[in-house]
Amino acid sequence: MKMTAQTSEWKKIALDVGIQNIISDDFAKKHAMIYQGQKNRPKAMAYFDQAALNTFKARGVEELIEHKKNGSKIVGTFCTFVPDEIIIAAGAIPIRLSAGTELSIADAEIILPREICPMIKSFAGLILAKSSPYFELVDFLVGETTCDGKKKVWELLQQYIPVHVMELPQKKVLTARNLWAREVFLLKEKMEIETGNKITAESLTRATQIVMAKRNALQRLANLRKSSLLPISGKDASLVYQVAFLDDIRRFTSKVEILCDELEKRIKESEGVVDSSAPRIMITGCPMVMPDWKLHHIIETSGAVVVCDDTCSGARCHIDPASASDWSADPSDVATQIKALADWYLNIPCPCFTPGYCEVLQATQMAKDHKVDGVIYYVLQFCHGFNIEYYKFEKHFNDLGIPIFKVQSDYSSEDTGQLQTRIAAFLEIIC
Amino acid sequence: MKMTAQTSEWKKIALDVGIQNIISDDFAKKHAMIYQGQKNRPKAMAYFDQAALNTFKARGVEELIEHKKNGSKIVGTFCTFVPDEIIIAAGAIPIRLSAGTELSIADAEIILPREICPMIKSFAGLILAKSSPYFELVDFLVGETTCDGKKKVWELLQQYIPVHVMELPQKKVLTARNLWAREVFLLKEKMEIETGNKITAESLTRATQIVMAKRNALQRLANLRKSSLLPISGKDASLVYQVAFLDDIRRFTSKVEILCDELEKRIKESEGVVDSSAPRIMITGCPMVMPDWKLHHIIETSGAVVVCDDTCSGARCHIDPASASDWSADPSDVATQIKALADWYLNIPCPCFTPGYCEVLQATQMAKDHKVDGVIYYVLQFCHGFNIEYYKFEKHFNDLGIPIFKVQSDYSSEDTGQLQTRIAAFLEIIC
Repeated sequence: MKMTAQTSEWKKIALDVGIQNIISDDFAKKHAMIYQGQKNRPKAMAYFDQAALNTFKARGVEELIEHKKNGSKIVGTFCTFVPDEIIIAAGAIPIRLSAGTELSIADAEIILPREICPMIKSFAGLILAKSSPYFELVDFLVGETTCDGKKKVWELLQQYIPVHVMELPQKKVLTARNLWAREVFLLKEKMEIETGNKITAESLTRATQIVMAKRNALQRLANLRKSSLLPISGKDASLVYQVAFLDDIRRFTSKVEILCDELEKRIKESEGVVDSSAPRIMITGCPMVMPDWKLHHIIETSGAVVVCDDTCSGARCHIDPASASDWSADPSDVATQIKALADWYLNIPCPCFTPGYCEVLQATQMAKDHKVDGVIYYVLQFCHGFNIEYYKFEKHFNDLGIPIFKVQSDYSSEDTGQLQTRIAAFLEIIC
Repeated sequence: MKMTAQTSEWKKIALDVGIQNIISDDFAKKHAMIYQGQKNRPKAMAYFDQAALNTFKARGVEELIEHKKNGSKIVGTFCTFVPDEIIIAAGAIPIRLSAGTELSIADAEIILPREICPMIKSFAGLILAKSSPYFELVDFLVGETTCDGKKKVWELLQQYIPVHVMELPQKKVLTARNLWAREVFLLKEKMEIETGNKITAESLTRATQIVMAKRNALQRLANLRKSSLLPISGKDASLVYQVAFLDDIRRFTSKVEILCDELEKRIKESEGVVDSSAPRIMITGCPMVMPDWKLHHIIETSGAVVVCDDTCSGARCHIDPASASDWSADPSDVATQIKALADWYLNIPCPCFTPGYCEVLQATQMAKDHKVDGVIYYVLQFCHGFNIEYYKFEKHFNDLGIPIFKVQSDYSSEDTGQLQTRIAAFLEIIC
């Protein structure tokens, strides 16, 4: 009965089911090729495989449809800097809608130039062609000003879907902190208006605990990848990070903990996924969202293994989840909480800030902690921030004697052969 | 004697004279080809021709060397949003160092990616190769955060030359105004430290009057281009705007007034530079800095004429110079003045802000005032802000029934033939 009701709701979504099916099939084909062939995968990955495959399928949005029927709001976000805590505290559901499919890019190029980053074009195309159920279900989007591309794209997308834009400051000075705290406060007000739910010190504390539990679980996963005997492949870990963007946060957290239990047991029992001589690679740079699996796959089919992801779709933002709890342990009033929360977010390393050296320092620490043999710096085509920042990384890692290599790519598979050759050459330098 | 002293100072500048000579010769060659062939040019253009030709020559920087010997500081800037008023009030000289030569781009690409805007690469290359006397003479640069490219490039250039970075906010809300006023105040403090000169209400009022006189003169020039009988070509007007960036401000202002006197006389005497049937074109979009003369030249050798430049290197920022005088008429204290000055700058239309509709409205007004037949929207390659914003302009001008056409280019001459063909086709639509 329940299934039937949901299926009928699914049909009501203003989807272009034809295009959506093409994208869904592409997901499944890519997933089968990249994930299923791995040997000795952790059993707990079955959950994340299924969650990934449900993307673009009725099952992936069943819960959201149910939530909406119960009066819950769904909020689409695109960036780490939009605080999930505020959205959850208002009783709404945040979903990270950055997209990594090339199949929607042609749709985006009707209104967008070709020469902007594929991630922006990918999600814009999904909106324009009505080919993603998520965009049809969200009540509104929360955008931000973290790059020129996104900043201007919100203005065009406003015609198709409401967007609330948060201004992230660019320098980390006192006035910038005040501006950002005000932006977080405005998001609180926006959420209260949209949901009719008042955000209190209590609801914000609860929401923060929920988000922190997720961050702690993901950091536990990241820590297990420091082991010399690697209990999980880089692409599996990456898939977990990617599922985090779309999945129910509490269930996701518990599934990550289950996975980590299994990985701990594997380490104790010396059960690794790759030969211990495989070069250990850190990926840093631009975020990677589903189904952007190309780079991990090439690296891990070239004899190396990815041991850490210093990206905002990886472990970059979970490094120090504890610091966000400083204030929530003794919540006084919601305004103080919001200031502390805003400050916590402002500490996330990102090239959108200037001067930006903390991202180099954090990457160095991660490289050391994970005993990496080489660094691959990923730049999404036309992403100026990460592209220009590479020079600092290159200089710094060269000084440290850790080989580093920049890969610039998009979501197509056209450059796969070329990347394989270049990565193989890089791995030869390392070995 | 004086000449000899200056020449010897010129020799002391840490220039790579070889490269500088190549660039200087290229300027002269381009200038001869593009400017000298025009018929019936205003006599007063001789001054601006000479000023343009002096760029990259000893004569172009003689005065600056003299100023430096007298203890004056020279400050390099790159954007309209850096307030010249503050720099002048401290007794220093602001010079706008954005560059439009392709000859320095290879030097920039040693540290910068290929896929960023040619203007950034052009000035960065001049710094890296020590091929511009201006960069060797400036005491420091004032950068800003108006685009991702510049924001990250300052960090790399800091190794070669000191850069003070101003954060421009991205939304025009109250906290953003406060942040920007604080940034202008910090520039005041920086200038006071660097020059040892206190900026007072009086010195800031004087500086504002100097800058306003220039804006008024340039606005007078823009207004004369509204005439049905056009007294000056678009490329000549553009050259005047470009010389404004480098020339002594007071002398420049008086020379623009002399030019305007001549143009007024021409209009009275029905002495135009083109046939009155020539299609009237507005250029809008990215700034054009010396020697970026390609687009104007192609348009004006295709039978059309450029009657207004809605760019920040053109008339975009001089539209309403009067409003800046509101506060200086009754200066109370320097902090109030700085707030008012900051607010004035924040009103300049630019795609670096979101949402950005005032630039469309201002462009519309300018198109109507100048009775344009068509609009050419200029995008420097890889400039995301202007490139994405074109969609809004296209939609708006299509609704108005004014043909609009996007031209994306860089500083090379490789695409000249292609641009000629495309612009000719556009002009056929208009006629």
